Amino acid sequence: MGETAPERVVILGAGRVATHLAPALVRAGYKLLQVWSRTEASVRQLAESLGASFTTELASVDTGADIYILCVADSVLPDIAERIVARVESSPLFLHTAGSVDLDLWQRCGAGNYGILYPLQTFSKEREVDMREVSFFVEASDVKALKKTEILARRLSDKVFRADSKRRARLHIAAVFACNFTNAMYDAAYHLLAEDDIPFEVLLPLIDETAAKVHKLAPHEAQTGPAARGDLAVMQRHWGLLAGNEKLQQLYALISEYITKK
Amino acid sequence: MGETAPERVVILGAGRVATHLAPALVRAGYKLLQVWSRTEASVRQLAESLGASFTTELASVDTGADIYILCVADSVLPDIAERIVARVESSPLFLHTAGSVDLDLWQRCGAGNYGILYPLQTFSKEREVDMREVSFFVEASDVKALKKTEILARRLSDKVFRADSKRRARLHIAAVFACNFTNAMYDAAYHLLAEDDIPFEVLLPLIDETAAKVHKLAPHEAQTGPAARGDLAVMQRHWGLLAGNEKLQQLYALISEYITKK
Repeated sequence: MGETAPERVVILGAGRVATHLAPALVRAGYKLLQVWSRTEASVRQLAESLGASFTTELASVDTGADIYILCVADSVLPDIAERIVARVESSPLFLHTAGSVDLDLWQRCGAGNYGILYPLQTFSKEREVDMREVSFFVEASDVKALKKTEILARRLSDKVFRADSKRRARLHIAAVFACNFTNAMYDAAYHLLAEDDIPFEVLLPLIDETAAKVHKLAPHEAQTGPAARGDLAVMQRHWGLLAGNEKLQQLYALISEYITKK
Repeated sequence: MGETAPERVVILGAGRVATHLAPALVRAGYKLLQVWSRTEASVRQLAESLGASFTTELASVDTGADIYILCVADSVLPDIAERIVARVESSPLFLHTAGSVDLDLWQRCGAGNYGILYPLQTFSKEREVDMREVSFFVEASDVKALKKTEILARRLSDKVFRADSKRRARLHIAAVFACNFTNAMYDAAYHLLAEDDIPFEVLLPLIDETAAKVHKLAPHEAQTGPAARGDLAVMQRHWGLLAGNEKLQQLYALISEYITKK
C-alpha cells in the first residue's frame, strides 16, 4: 500500500468466512477497524485476536471505514446490507462474499460503490486455508469499484477472476456439487462403515486419491466402479444390501444412473 | 522371506489392479512367474516391465506357482476362476481382489486353499499409489490360507484387516460412495463450469480442502452449504438455474434432501 495510509475495513459477520478473511486482510496490510456480529462470543474472539474493536449492535458500527465487507448468511444479508448502507453516509465500497446473491442487492439498498468478493472455498473455523490458492470471483458497480475490489482480492490471492452474478451463481452450484455433495457422499460412506464398526479412517487414502486423480484427469476419465463398467450384477447386489436404508438406496440408484448414462 | 526360496506368483489380469499389485509383489520379494490377460498389449507391457513371462491363453498358464491372484472384472471372474482351478492340479493358494464377489466362489470351483485380497483403493494406470497406505481386507478358506494371505497383504501394506464377504461387500458400497460417487459429483461440477467456459482447475483447492477436512472432522461435522443450513431460497434458485439439465436437477434435489434430513 506504499506511502499512503492503509485502507480501513469493517467486517460484518464472525462466521467461517469472516474468520478466515479478516486475518488475511490484516496480513495483506489493511487496517481492520471493527468487526460486527450478533454473537458476542465469536465477534469478541475474532476482533481481539486481530487488535480490532467489535460490536454486536448495527447502530454502533463504525461509519469511518473505506470498505465494508459483509460475510453473513444469505438469509440475513439483505436486511443487514440495507441497514449498513443507510447508516454509513460517506461513500465507501460495500462488498459481500455470497455465492448466490446478485449484485443488484446493493443497488436496491441505495449503495453507490459496491461489489462482490466471492471466495470459492469451504472454510472451517478449525482449519487453516492457504488463501493465496483460493479462487476469488469479483464483480462491481463500476470500473472504479471493480478496480478497488480486484486490488483487494489480489492482495489476498493469486487467483482472481471476474464473474457476473449469473456466472457466479453457476459457480456456486458447481461448488455445491464438488464440495457439499461430495461431503454428503463421505457421510453416506461413514454411516455404512459405522454399521459394521469399521473406522472411517480406512477410506481416507481412497478419498485422497479420488481427489488427487482429478488434478491430472478430467472426472469422466477418472471414473471407475460398477456403474462406470456397467456391472449390473454388482449394482443389484449393492442395492439389495442397502435394504432398510431407503435414502441410500435412492442415492445409489440415481448416481449410478448418472454415471451409466454418460 | 529369509533363507527360503521366494514364493512364486501368477497374476491373472493386466488391468488397473494388476498393474499396481504386480510390481508391489515383486518389490515385496515374491517371484512373479507369469501374467495372463486376454489383451496382449497390456499383458506384454506389464510382464516385460517386471521380468516375468506372459500369455494370453488360459491353457498356457504356468501350473507351477504357489499363489494365483485373479485381478479381473467381476463379470468374468467366475469363468476364469473355474478354468484356472481346473487347470492347476497342485494345491496352490487362489486369491481374488474383487470387493463384491463372495469367498464361496472358490469352493464352487473346487479350490482347496483360497482367499480374498481386497484393496480398498481406486487405481489408475497413469498414477502411482503408495501401496503401504492402502487398506487390504482379507478372508480365506481356513486358518492356514488366511495366514498365508495375511502375510502377503502385510508385505504390501501396513493396513491389513480381516473381513468376511458380507462385511467386504458393505465396504465396497462405502467405497462406491466415497470414490465413484464423489467422482460423479466432480463430473457434474466439471460440466456446469464447462458450460460457462470456466476451467475445472478453479475447483481443485475446494476439492482438496473438502477431502482434507474429513481427516480431522467426521463428515457430518464438516458439512457446509445451502442444504446444511436449510437455505431454501438458495436451493430453489440453484434448482431453477439447472433448468434444462434434468439429471443434475434430480441429483441436486435428492442429495440436498439427504443433507437436510440429517
